[in-house]
Amino acid sequence: MTWIENAWYVAAWDAGVDFEPVSRTICGVPMVFYRRLDRSVVAMRDACPHRLLPLSMGIREGDSIRCKYHGLRIGPDGKANEMPLRSDPVNARVCAETFVTHERHRFVWVWIGEKDKADPALIPDLWPCSTEGWTFDGGYYHVACDYRLMIDNLMDLTHETYVHSGSIGQLEILEADIETIAENDSVFVQRWMPGIDAPPFWRQALGKDGPVDRWQICQFLKPASVMIDVGVALTGAGASLASHDQGARGMVVDFMTPETENTHHYFWGMARNFNIHDAGLTARMKKQQGGVFAEDKDILEAQQRAIEANPDMRLSAYRIDEGGVRARQIIARAIKNAQAELAN
Amino acid sequence: MTWIENAWYVAAWDAGVDFEPVSRTICGVPMVFYRRLDRSVVAMRDACPHRLLPLSMGIREGDSIRCKYHGLRIGPDGKANEMPLRSDPVNARVCAETFVTHERHRFVWVWIGEKDKADPALIPDLWPCSTEGWTFDGGYYHVACDYRLMIDNLMDLTHETYVHSGSIGQLEILEADIETIAENDSVFVQRWMPGIDAPPFWRQALGKDGPVDRWQICQFLKPASVMIDVGVALTGAGASLASHDQGARGMVVDFMTPETENTHHYFWGMARNFNIHDAGLTARMKKQQGGVFAEDKDILEAQQRAIEANPDMRLSAYRIDEGGVRARQIIARAIKNAQAELAN
Amino acid sequence: MTWIENAWYVAAWDAGVDFEPVSRTICGVPMVFYRRLDRSVVAMRDACPHRLLPLSMGIREGDSIRCKYHGLRIGPDGKANEMPLRSDPVNARVCAETFVTHERHRFVWVWIGEKDKADPALIPDLWPCSTEGWTFDGGYYHVACDYRLMIDNLMDLTHETYVHSGSIGQLEILEADIETIAENDSVFVQRWMPGIDAPPFWRQALGKDGPVDRWQICQFLKPASVMIDVGVALTGAGASLASHDQGARGMVVDFMTPETENTHHYFWGMARNFNIHDAGLTARMKKQQGGVFAEDKDILEAQQRAIEANPDMRLSAYRIDEGGVRARQIIARAIKNAQAELAN
Repeated sequence: MTWIENAWYVAAWDAGVDFEPVSRTICGVPMVFYRRLDRSVVAMRDACPHRLLPLSMGIREGDSIRCKYHGLRIGPDGKANEMPLRSDPVNARVCAETFVTHERHRFVWVWIGEKDKADPALIPDLWPCSTEGWTFDGGYYHVACDYRLMIDNLMDLTHETYVHSGSIGQLEILEADIETIAENDSVFVQRWMPGIDAPPFWRQALGKDGPVDRWQICQFLKPASVMIDVGVALTGAGASLASHDQGARGMVVDFMTPETENTHHYFWGMARNFNIHDAGLTARMKKQQGGVFAEDKDILEAQQRAIEANPDMRLSAYRIDEGGVRARQIIARAIKNAQAELAN
Repeated sequence: MTWIENAWYVAAWDAGVDFEPVSRTICGVPMVFYRRLDRSVVAMRDACPHRLLPLSMGIREGDSIRCKYHGLRIGPDGKANEMPLRSDPVNARVCAETFVTHERHRFVWVWIGEKDKADPALIPDLWPCSTEGWTFDGGYYHVACDYRLMIDNLMDLTHETYVHSGSIGQLEILEADIETIAENDSVFVQRWMPGIDAPPFWRQALGKDGPVDRWQICQFLKPASVMIDVGVALTGAGASLASHDQGARGMVVDFMTPETENTHHYFWGMARNFNIHDAGLTARMKKQQGGVFAEDKDILEAQQRAIEANPDMRLSAYRIDEGGVRARQIIARAIKNAQAELAN
Repeated sequence: MTWIENAWYVAAWDAGVDFEPVSRTICGVPMVFYRRLDRSVVAMRDACPHRLLPLSMGIREGDSIRCKYHGLRIGPDGKANEMPLRSDPVNARVCAETFVTHERHRFVWVWIGEKDKADPALIPDLWPCSTEGWTFDGGYYHVACDYRLMIDNLMDLTHETYVHSGSIGQLEILEADIETIAENDSVFVQRWMPGIDAPPFWRQALGKDGPVDRWQICQFLKPASVMIDVGVALTGAGASLASHDQGARGMVVDFMTPETENTHHYFWGMARNFNIHDAGLTARMKKQQGGVFAEDKDILEAQQRAIEANPDMRLSAYRIDEGGVRARQIIARAIKNAQAELAN
């Protein structure tokens, strides 16, 4: 296994699950998601306990799903509440596996692991997605690569120069020095660029002229998220790596949810604390970000194919890769600890 | 292996094999089928004994096939009758594996197993396909699922309510009680619905008004057929589950021929004893049946994929599944007996 | 392994490699090929030593390639000459595997095996491709079959009668007797057809009337080439199997380069010593040859699929197959010797 269990993963954007059942495989398990009439989210194994037909092919009846094959009806608690022959008594042992879900930060999260440990407090604190004074939007890509390759990618922004040479790439990124800090279950890779000319986008966001201090702080959060804190403040306004609410600030948020060992669901978005009521800006930023991440998707899928085509080769890690290396260490340690716990 | 050996399987509709060689894989073995000039059917391994090019790519010469690669010519007895260099003496050991075929009930049957046991008397007795006073027609689908899933499907008509909700499905089927009887190498699942209003199709077929007794009797026949006896008779005419030639009667016939462990050839049709000269009715019934069975194909292929996507789950069997369960027991027992025989 | 190591294989036509990097898998290894500014050819593992992205996706900078992912720059010697962070000192151990190449006979050859044994003198002597008084052109096909099936095909021209029945096939080929001679690392299959009427193509090539002697000499050259010497001379002009420069002569040249165990690169062409300045004839011959070899490709890919679909069957060898059998023996012996050497 390449992913952490007993953890929350993003299953969908909030608007990505509605009354109509939808199927999505999470951490190797086919699941069906739909909303009850009260809009709370149900997640179940996407296979009827009778003959395994996907429940997502079934028909909603109130908060239940009736299987399209023989009509076994499963309630949102996973338990059968009507047998194929409706006159037959309901067998209490007939049930679909259910999964704990929780909605936060505009996403539907699903708990992978032992249900009784599913504590919403363990959902990563992605405050920019749901804090007053901030706005947030984004999108989704299916990416045919190991989700850890996407984490590597996001924890090392030097790739922007080459992968995104037509858009956000710039050589300055290569010149600023980086610092990598691993603490507990998180890793930070940070760049501080003091007293520079603001790039056009950030000058406009800031709404002021003059030299700026600029920052980029990539943060990995267990089990599989990356937040990138980016922005500028006027030089002299007192901004620092530790505290920088003096200027225009954005948060790139990225959630990598394993589908299989070689594919994953990629949820991406951007939060910001400037011009938050400018819906046109929100739409333009989402479109641009979608274009940028499509470039990453192309590169990462080529990388996955290359890994498979060169089985005698191993990934190397240079100084720029330290963030990804540390993130992978956290993942590997958590997997190992869980296995040790199981063995006891 | 998931199928019975030393048994007859349907290879094709009678009109599906002609002078032109056609390829079809039966029980894992690629075969070529064609008719001799006297119209008897030849079945051989679809691989030239020389360099394995499919013989179905070859050229008919009289009753022989000349391989398209180097021209080795194989007679309908499987023996080479001309070498690639025509002047070379024919090597008597050069031959293609042949298979025993037999035509009956409008189908070409092929014997899988030891040739000397290929007794046409072992072909299942599907009398409605070839009895005076009856007419019969049908079609073919390739279905990407284990052939036993189709047997399960046909031995349990409760699925009609949901899978065929737009056509033949009706809730009454769920209300009638069923009885399952296994005897020797056959299984019956039967429903008797006395004194009901005839559905429009059957009222027209019967040509008389008044309450009717209606029946549905699914019969599994070893190794892989299902016949479904359906119809209505006027209440009081003396019809019973055991004998019901008093009214309008149809026989749905289904032959499942394994191609691989996860795919099969599905031959289906319908025989009837009413309005047998009405070619328009025959065409309409075939078209409707084709639509209904296409719905089954969709469901069963989704079920096969779900079985593969949920390797930790098993099919469950409820009361409605008893017919399929019994049929699978007959298949499993025959496979086991054959293996025991081989081991002795 | 099904191919000989420590040998030269054709990687590309000379015009098939230019400044733009191109990817091609040779003997199971993904490689990138490109020309230095001085037009010499570079061959490297097509995977960046950093994170394995194909170097063929990278950007040429002088004679180096900069990886499209993080900008590691690899020189034509395979060594990194700039790190992703340009200010970082170059790590001398960072390098891509390189391969020895050599250009001869209008092809780019690549050495598979131990580099220090890569002697250009070991390139097969395909003199008609680069001899004064001869002209040469041809094409390329990707063929989804074991490269040895193509060798079998070329060493036995009886297939022309059936595979190429619409073009070059003729029954006379089946009537002439063949002789197979294996000597050292080469195999010859030869036909001598004395005193016959010249076919139209050859009569025109010869430019003279009268009975001719015609020859076909297929030669296998280790590790994976076949040259076919074809032509006619006026009867009485003194031509023989051993020496036949008296008439019009062509050389079909074929290079089979393994891609994987079940696929190969097929380079084909034709050299001739008549009308060598007739560019229209060259183009017509190439077009015809391309059509003929496309027929072989269809047959061989069907043969490969049939081999996989009939795992219980083996290829048989008749008298006509002796050339291919001998060629395969040379290949198998060389593989075995190399393994024995490795074991010592």
